[in-house]
Amino acid sequence: MSKKNVAIIGYGGMGGWHAKHLLESDCANLIGIFDIKESRQELARERGIRAYDSLEQLLADPAVDIVTIATPNDVHKELAIKAMAAGKNVISEKPVTLCSSDLQEMFDASEKYSRLFVVHQNRRWDADFLAMKQIFESGLLGEVFNIESRVHGPRGIPGDWRHLKAHGGGMMLDWGVHLIDQMLQMVPDPIDSIYARMDHITNDEVDDGFKMDLYYKNGRVVRIEVGTTNFINLPRWYMQGTKGTAIINDWDLSGKAITCDDQEEGEVTPIITAAGLTKTMAPRKAETLTEHPIPKLSPDVHDFYRNICKAVDGVEPQLITHPQMMRVMKVMEAAFESDRVGAPVPFER
Amino acid sequence: MSKKNVAIIGYGGMGGWHAKHLLESDCANLIGIFDIKESRQELARERGIRAYDSLEQLLADPAVDIVTIATPNDVHKELAIKAMAAGKNVISEKPVTLCSSDLQEMFDASEKYSRLFVVHQNRRWDADFLAMKQIFESGLLGEVFNIESRVHGPRGIPGDWRHLKAHGGGMMLDWGVHLIDQMLQMVPDPIDSIYARMDHITNDEVDDGFKMDLYYKNGRVVRIEVGTTNFINLPRWYMQGTKGTAIINDWDLSGKAITCDDQEEGEVTPIITAAGLTKTMAPRKAETLTEHPIPKLSPDVHDFYRNICKAVDGVEPQLITHPQMMRVMKVMEAAFESDRVGAPVPFER
Repeated sequence: MSKKNVAIIGYGGMGGWHAKHLLESDCANLIGIFDIKESRQELARERGIRAYDSLEQLLADPAVDIVTIATPNDVHKELAIKAMAAGKNVISEKPVTLCSSDLQEMFDASEKYSRLFVVHQNRRWDADFLAMKQIFESGLLGEVFNIESRVHGPRGIPGDWRHLKAHGGGMMLDWGVHLIDQMLQMVPDPIDSIYARMDHITNDEVDDGFKMDLYYKNGRVVRIEVGTTNFINLPRWYMQGTKGTAIINDWDLSGKAITCDDQEEGEVTPIITAAGLTKTMAPRKAETLTEHPIPKLSPDVHDFYRNICKAVDGVEPQLITHPQMMRVMKVMEAAFESDRVGAPVPFER
Repeated sequence: MSKKNVAIIGYGGMGGWHAKHLLESDCANLIGIFDIKESRQELARERGIRAYDSLEQLLADPAVDIVTIATPNDVHKELAIKAMAAGKNVISEKPVTLCSSDLQEMFDASEKYSRLFVVHQNRRWDADFLAMKQIFESGLLGEVFNIESRVHGPRGIPGDWRHLKAHGGGMMLDWGVHLIDQMLQMVPDPIDSIYARMDHITNDEVDDGFKMDLYYKNGRVVRIEVGTTNFINLPRWYMQGTKGTAIINDWDLSGKAITCDDQEEGEVTPIITAAGLTKTMAPRKAETLTEHPIPKLSPDVHDFYRNICKAVDGVEPQLITHPQMMRVMKVMEAAFESDRVGAPVPFER
């Protein structure tokens, strides 16, 4: 199978990330980029990367198989539809669009022009997520009833357009889209309702963080939380089952799982604090507990482009499907609606 | 001022705690106990403590100034009113009663018989709480917008009657009452609404934990959480302000506060994970941050009995007031109501 030629529209932070990965790719070539900023065009040329003179020139190049769109969120739709109309397969940076009706238009274009359309959900290949997914699926913790996924940072919303609603700014669309996609991959069951509160600590126009709970029909509860005014972080992952708990503290994958064989302990030694004592919150005796390491996986994010290249050739199904993308978008819409009404909103009822 | 004589009704776990503290007290004598279990009566006698033959005998003893009630929750009201009618001042173990109307009856008895009535909110003297309260009040963290108070344990609901609704079991009434009282002491401002979900992981009849959010009228949000199926604990305290974050990990008061002087940092070094990069969640450079230790206070829980003895003599106001007790009870009622309707409920509107 020959390598696919990929052109990148938008050579900023994530555009540069795609370029770097394409230069290392075993399935795709970086054929060129286009950016509306002349400075970025020049930077590409300095790095030996072709910069197309115009968007039209890029789309007219018959050598381009796939277009990767890494622009601000509000122009994804227009660019994606234009590219598909020009016969290109399209990878769009997340969150793809600002609402589900826009996303549906992109799906419609994908069908109309028979071109692949996919969102770049790269964080499905993150090692922390895959380790927790493996623990979840292994049954190690017994019946899992609570999962908490948090990403905390200390610098508000960095960058320029991410502060602006019109450009699809805010943390729900930036990080929420990843954490929701991961959670729906881990726990795909039907959701009964969604509750969310957006934060506006450093930014009034868009959310600079949020707390969100997914209540599943089977009783599971999932919390997803993003914060950007956190000078100390809470753990990245926390998962509770009837027989154990797992934690990942940080991106470095430090953490552990503790399981409990539930044997009789005899007399409990209470915790004595300055003003009271508690048996309820006393730790269990060490001999009734087993510690397990966090699985150290070696995911390869190049599998994203490998899958897309094979899917373009029709030899492998697209891993990140349209219904999955739409479900993530609908969860985000429900979260904004919940924040607006100040109460949980029904979902998938 | 002469020492007050205190008799304890209910010589179980907390009854024993009171007895121990009274034996060490500089303001109160333990005059005797009464327990409906003969085995506990015998245990007291073995320990050289007088066990009254009956409740009536205890209440009829003119030497008894104060009665401390440490029975299951459902009989607090009956015993307290009976004791006040007999001319005794009354300390009741928390949560005092199962509903606010019962609590009001106890206040009415206190007024009718002109006797002191107070709930044993001993955890106001816990060092972790007082350290966080000091940080909160110092302004170190800037404008505090989020406080999280968690108590996690690994053994479900221990003991006997704490499993039963009729006896006032469940974790909201057991631990919630402490954590709510602490929070209302730390953040006394008016509350706009309350959202809570009860857990039933190991117990269907009563809650074996809960998650609860207080939304203050001034925008502050407070989370109170109790869990009893947690084999790894999340931090005891987490507090976020506009200029810093503070954390206390455990009862041992390990933790820290980090403040940020918000200076320009120049180029941010992104965090690179298996599948992506993030500048938003990258830590700040160490030179823009200052670490502060958690204040190590030495609260003396004997101050509870000292205050009560002085309040009986009318030389000091009662520290734990009737309106404070009632507000804690109303918050718990709102939490149960929120859980029932599955949405936030208005509070103090």
